[in-house]
Amino acid sequence: MHRDLRKLLAEMTLEEKASLCSGLDFWSTKGIERLGIPSIMLTDGPHGLRKQRASADHLGLFDSVPATCFPSAAGLASSWDRDLIRKVGEALGEECQAEDVAVLLGPGANIKRSPLCGRNFEYFSEDPFLSAELAASHIQGVQIQGVGASLKHFAVNNQEHRRMTIDAIVDERTLREIYLASFEGAVNQGRPWTVMCSYNKVNGEYASEHVGLLTEILKEEWGFEGFTVSDWGAVNERTRGLAAGLDLEMPGNGGAGDREIVSAVRRGDLPEEAVDRAVMRVLSVIFKAADGKREGAAYDPNAHHRLAREVARESMVLLKNEGELLPLPKTGKIALIGEMAVRPRYQGGGSSHVNPTRMDDLREQLLLSAGGGVEIVYSQGYELDRDDEVEELSAEAVRVAEEADVAIVVLGLPERFESEGFDRSHLRLPDNQSRLLEAVSKVQSRIVAILSNGSSVEMPWLSSAGAILEAYLGGQALGGALADLIFGDANPSGKLAETFPVDLRHNPSHPYFPGEGDRVEYREGIFVGYRYYDAKNIEPLFPFGHGLSYTTFQYSGLSVDKKDMEDTDSLTIQVEVSNTGDRPGKEVVQLYVRDVHSGVIRPEKELKGFAKVYLEPGQSRTITFQLDKRAFAYYNTDIGDWAVESGDFEMLVGKSSAQIELRETVFVHSKAAPGKKYTRNTAIGDLMTDPRAIPAVQGLLANTPFGASSAIANEDSISAMMAAALKDMPLRGLAAFSGGAFSNETIDEMLRELNAD
Amino acid sequence: MHRDLRKLLAEMTLEEKASLCSGLDFWSTKGIERLGIPSIMLTDGPHGLRKQRASADHLGLFDSVPATCFPSAAGLASSWDRDLIRKVGEALGEECQAEDVAVLLGPGANIKRSPLCGRNFEYFSEDPFLSAELAASHIQGVQIQGVGASLKHFAVNNQEHRRMTIDAIVDERTLREIYLASFEGAVNQGRPWTVMCSYNKVNGEYASEHVGLLTEILKEEWGFEGFTVSDWGAVNERTRGLAAGLDLEMPGNGGAGDREIVSAVRRGDLPEEAVDRAVMRVLSVIFKAADGKREGAAYDPNAHHRLAREVARESMVLLKNEGELLPLPKTGKIALIGEMAVRPRYQGGGSSHVNPTRMDDLREQLLLSAGGGVEIVYSQGYELDRDDEVEELSAEAVRVAEEADVAIVVLGLPERFESEGFDRSHLRLPDNQSRLLEAVSKVQSRIVAILSNGSSVEMPWLSSAGAILEAYLGGQALGGALADLIFGDANPSGKLAETFPVDLRHNPSHPYFPGEGDRVEYREGIFVGYRYYDAKNIEPLFPFGHGLSYTTFQYSGLSVDKKDMEDTDSLTIQVEVSNTGDRPGKEVVQLYVRDVHSGVIRPEKELKGFAKVYLEPGQSRTITFQLDKRAFAYYNTDIGDWAVESGDFEMLVGKSSAQIELRETVFVHSKAAPGKKYTRNTAIGDLMTDPRAIPAVQGLLANTPFGASSAIANEDSISAMMAAALKDMPLRGLAAFSGGAFSNETIDEMLRELNAD
Repeated sequence: MHRDLRKLLAEMTLEEKASLCSGLDFWSTKGIERLGIPSIMLTDGPHGLRKQRASADHLGLFDSVPATCFPSAAGLASSWDRDLIRKVGEALGEECQAEDVAVLLGPGANIKRSPLCGRNFEYFSEDPFLSAELAASHIQGVQIQGVGASLKHFAVNNQEHRRMTIDAIVDERTLREIYLASFEGAVNQGRPWTVMCSYNKVNGEYASEHVGLLTEILKEEWGFEGFTVSDWGAVNERTRGLAAGLDLEMPGNGGAGDREIVSAVRRGDLPEEAVDRAVMRVLSVIFKAADGKREGAAYDPNAHHRLAREVARESMVLLKNEGELLPLPKTGKIALIGEMAVRPRYQGGGSSHVNPTRMDDLREQLLLSAGGGVEIVYSQGYELDRDDEVEELSAEAVRVAEEADVAIVVLGLPERFESEGFDRSHLRLPDNQSRLLEAVSKVQSRIVAILSNGSSVEMPWLSSAGAILEAYLGGQALGGALADLIFGDANPSGKLAETFPVDLRHNPSHPYFPGEGDRVEYREGIFVGYRYYDAKNIEPLFPFGHGLSYTTFQYSGLSVDKKDMEDTDSLTIQVEVSNTGDRPGKEVVQLYVRDVHSGVIRPEKELKGFAKVYLEPGQSRTITFQLDKRAFAYYNTDIGDWAVESGDFEMLVGKSSAQIELRETVFVHSKAAPGKKYTRNTAIGDLMTDPRAIPAVQGLLANTPFGASSAIANEDSISAMMAAALKDMPLRGLAAFSGGAFSNETIDEMLRELNAD
Repeated sequence: MHRDLRKLLAEMTLEEKASLCSGLDFWSTKGIERLGIPSIMLTDGPHGLRKQRASADHLGLFDSVPATCFPSAAGLASSWDRDLIRKVGEALGEECQAEDVAVLLGPGANIKRSPLCGRNFEYFSEDPFLSAELAASHIQGVQIQGVGASLKHFAVNNQEHRRMTIDAIVDERTLREIYLASFEGAVNQGRPWTVMCSYNKVNGEYASEHVGLLTEILKEEWGFEGFTVSDWGAVNERTRGLAAGLDLEMPGNGGAGDREIVSAVRRGDLPEEAVDRAVMRVLSVIFKAADGKREGAAYDPNAHHRLAREVARESMVLLKNEGELLPLPKTGKIALIGEMAVRPRYQGGGSSHVNPTRMDDLREQLLLSAGGGVEIVYSQGYELDRDDEVEELSAEAVRVAEEADVAIVVLGLPERFESEGFDRSHLRLPDNQSRLLEAVSKVQSRIVAILSNGSSVEMPWLSSAGAILEAYLGGQALGGALADLIFGDANPSGKLAETFPVDLRHNPSHPYFPGEGDRVEYREGIFVGYRYYDAKNIEPLFPFGHGLSYTTFQYSGLSVDKKDMEDTDSLTIQVEVSNTGDRPGKEVVQLYVRDVHSGVIRPEKELKGFAKVYLEPGQSRTITFQLDKRAFAYYNTDIGDWAVESGDFEMLVGKSSAQIELRETVFVHSKAAPGKKYTRNTAIGDLMTDPRAIPAVQGLLANTPFGASSAIANEDSISAMMAAALKDMPLRGLAAFSGGAFSNETIDEMLRELNAD
């Protein structure tokens, strides 16, 4: 419906305008009845609706209306499936419509800098391209239902430790290439209605007051048209925030922030236009929500549960499968071990905590899938709420395992290890769990380990399990999805969206995570995740992009549509993928780009494309990728823009970041022409690349001891040293070594001529 | 002799003063005859005198007067022997006296940040404590002869690549704890007559114009009393440099710099006092040199050669000795393989290049030591001047090795790989050398590899050699020293002063070395050398401090004279070391200190003491270390001073950084009392450690949903999250979540009271 929002604004008092800049309460914006402006509801969260019941506590961390609990983002991301995530978004949007929720608070596009971050389960990846693509799909899905998404937490909120005061120190190039890139793609492709600012500071400024982030980059450069909202309680100084571009303060604070805004305007400390700008953005979303509202909407919980099962199945990653232990036959005796088999960890703690519509029971699902051919004996094995071994439990589990044909051992991180609000202090499983696994492995050689955790764990016990299936936090249909994969009714197709390190200390952020006091330095820069393990040649436990299947895939026929291109051209890359095994399956094909020689420090390779493809046995399909300038570019802080260096780029197509199958080289010409001025401190080697300068430099050289150096240098090492010294020497060095034969003024004269051209 | 330098200064014209601020030529200062001020000579370098002959080229890179060539600093440092290095200094000082040299340009105290640095052979260590101790001993030795040392290159000159223009970006704490600490100890204990500034920039300022480095830290804080001199050609803007504290410009530049100084003073751009200060420092050293001059001094080249042999012996590091392959028996047939056996690399390239008084021949020395009992067959094996294999050479070497009882394979880096003026591009030996070794190992299981190189090399061929003796650049008596060790007439006692990585990429500076364009970021911060390998749990090829012996040592009875101390106290640590083998030998006992829990990011451990001790078989000795505050402190940039955090500190005594034998804990109390003010952004957890604040905070909490959280939190994860969230939440967060029950003003009021106390 068309409305003249400018006209509406003109009818509002300053107090009314300010009132729209903060919430009515914890979960709603204010309405203005006399002007027909409704109040709308914003609610957590990205993998399921968490709409508080009226009776619940104000923070609303539990007792919410039932909603479908999908796998959390760490799992979703492992599907590497844009369409599937869009479908999840659509389902979430449907549930919002049914519950009268206008804006769903998510998805989160923060980067997994350290696996210790307690909230990693809510984020997609260590890679900004993958994260941005999936966040965009999520947003598109939600918003197609006439419900808004709120992309969060903008920006550089990569830890829970002191998240409300920590100052993240990140260099500009790293910000652009890693931490902002993840949001940039999500904003550009997803067009979210709202963006939520984070709690922390970025390079000295609170994100809630960061004009560079909120206004210059997000709104002006990326063209974001919705409103920005504070993370709950992220406002520091309300008027500073408003001036910087923070439109809506949440939660409502009894109007304290509104009063500050009004008096700042009256005092002349804040231009009223700043308030107008915020109000216009808030209004436009409110009315978009009003227009999108479908009265009497409902959804089918059974259909959503089936979707949750499909998604969980696609999200799980088969990390290891020695001797094709999986899938299991639908016969024989199975020991099902571990309290997590009956008390599954299927979602993360904190604001994203959902009250599920129903909950699969793993044992029941296994029995259903097996169709009566198997016997399952459950043994608790360990107590989930403690870390120390309970001998009787462990002894019983060992006995049960010994008598079975195979043991399924369910392990993972309890919520007390991992949640919003605090970070993990190590990457280990609880001691009792890893000890149980080792004890069971002494009597049973066929062990399938199932893992439920929001981020990577160390596996000193790796050799104890023949198969390892990473289920992440798999949502309410976790049990059914596991049954599908364990018996081979479905084929695992997830791949890791994050590196699993052998040792926490290998992580790039270590030992600078989580910082000192209220300051954390991102010293690893752009070398986050696989970019670091590549650069440092540190072998991870499981690399980024890794995931096994019950079938096999072969890659062939990599081709590019040009071998030589301008950086403004688009490049088309094709590769054929074949299912060479005997089961249908899905493969995630990954395209990485490598700058072969670079004047700037760049990662060994970066993900720039991916596709998930379904193939019947024997079937082949051609995958097509399109790359544009950005795929070859780095962020050049000198010019404040993305730039490509002319040269060879390799297209690497692989099954994981560590398993590149095919490569092809393309020469990319940069269209940008650098305009550089020479100075006394220009290195002679740099100057000599300019043909106009050669005679003048040679003239100077003749008056220095270097002039004769080629003649007297009858020892190789000396001429090599001379050549190297000369190459790196600034022009002024010639004067210094001329013994007074000429001075810096002579050099300046030469420079004036060269720079004049 | 007492002179009134102030009076002398008063008699000088401005032009005369300025004339003393630059050299007469390449190697001398200017004299002023009418005032009786002599010219003095400054000459390279730290491991041997390089006094240019009158006939040579101006750069004087060769054709210098004969001088004893001692092992270069990389080797010297591996001796870990302060007394021995002092003796080398004394010998160098003697040669200076004999050659009328007033100041010897060295030692170098730069830190080995990357093994790629082409000039690492001239530096001592990756550890600032070890480097400072050894540099101080070197200076003391030279200066006891009435000759000055010139400590160089001040500061942060850790690469040759673009060394004259590169800007080293280093945070303040890293500067203090690593890069400056190496100079600080050398200045304090060594009291060098002069300090040479480096070519590069440090955090945006040329070292030659860096008032912070040259004046505030070096002269004012450390109390350096001599003159500062530019590295040759390091002056950028002469008057800026003089104002910043650069006293002497070298080489002389036909007086161009002097004229700039004079006109700057006349224009009023430079206070004449700045010139006076520089002149006073130059004069004081000139007259110290004049007073120290011993007319007709001479030295005994044979005695110095013997010292060179002793030093080389003590410097070599036995890296590996499988099955006690070394020492060799003085019988049988030895294949001596590798062109470096006859064309040894015994010193580094560049300004430190010495014209040796004589040169040991390895084969001859081996025959001499063996006393006629062995036959030695030499085979060239590879061509030193190329990287590709010469098949006939390699085949012959294999044949010779096959027919011998043992093969000594001499390998190393040619000068074209490693020199002043450029950095290495990789850590490998030339391909032909490693391939030769592998070929020989196919026919001969008893291989002793001898390495000559200025810094670490990768050893993918490690398993091919049973014994590896790292000889570094061993000076003119390299051959004799090798013979001593190979046949066991002496026992190896060197230990690595640097980490040997498995892979260059594991080095802490990678991939940020050597930077981009004219900028290099020291992102690894304080985590240089073993500090990094410890922190990242990356296993090196050979750890810092490693070195084997032909005998065995046992440590026992570690004791401390107090278990609880103030940081202003001194701590005495004793440990008993016993020779438990059957040969006399020397052990380097290393003391590391570890801060057990720290609020700031600190290394796992840091070297704070070492001692080299000689023991007969069965003999024991007690080693005593003294530690003061500095051994426990880190550099606190908030207060601009060294600070200790109260807590437990472990004293770790070991044979290497990776082999700690004994440990003892001491509690250290910090005497400093932090004075802190609370703000709206103080975290609640921090405030609650102050008992006065508890009631007020609890009062506020009661008006937020958190107040009731313990009552409603019937799920563990939620109360854990709540507790964590509250602990890290700034006070203002309470107002934000109070729903308007109180405002930030209420908090400000509470803070005023707390801060008033």
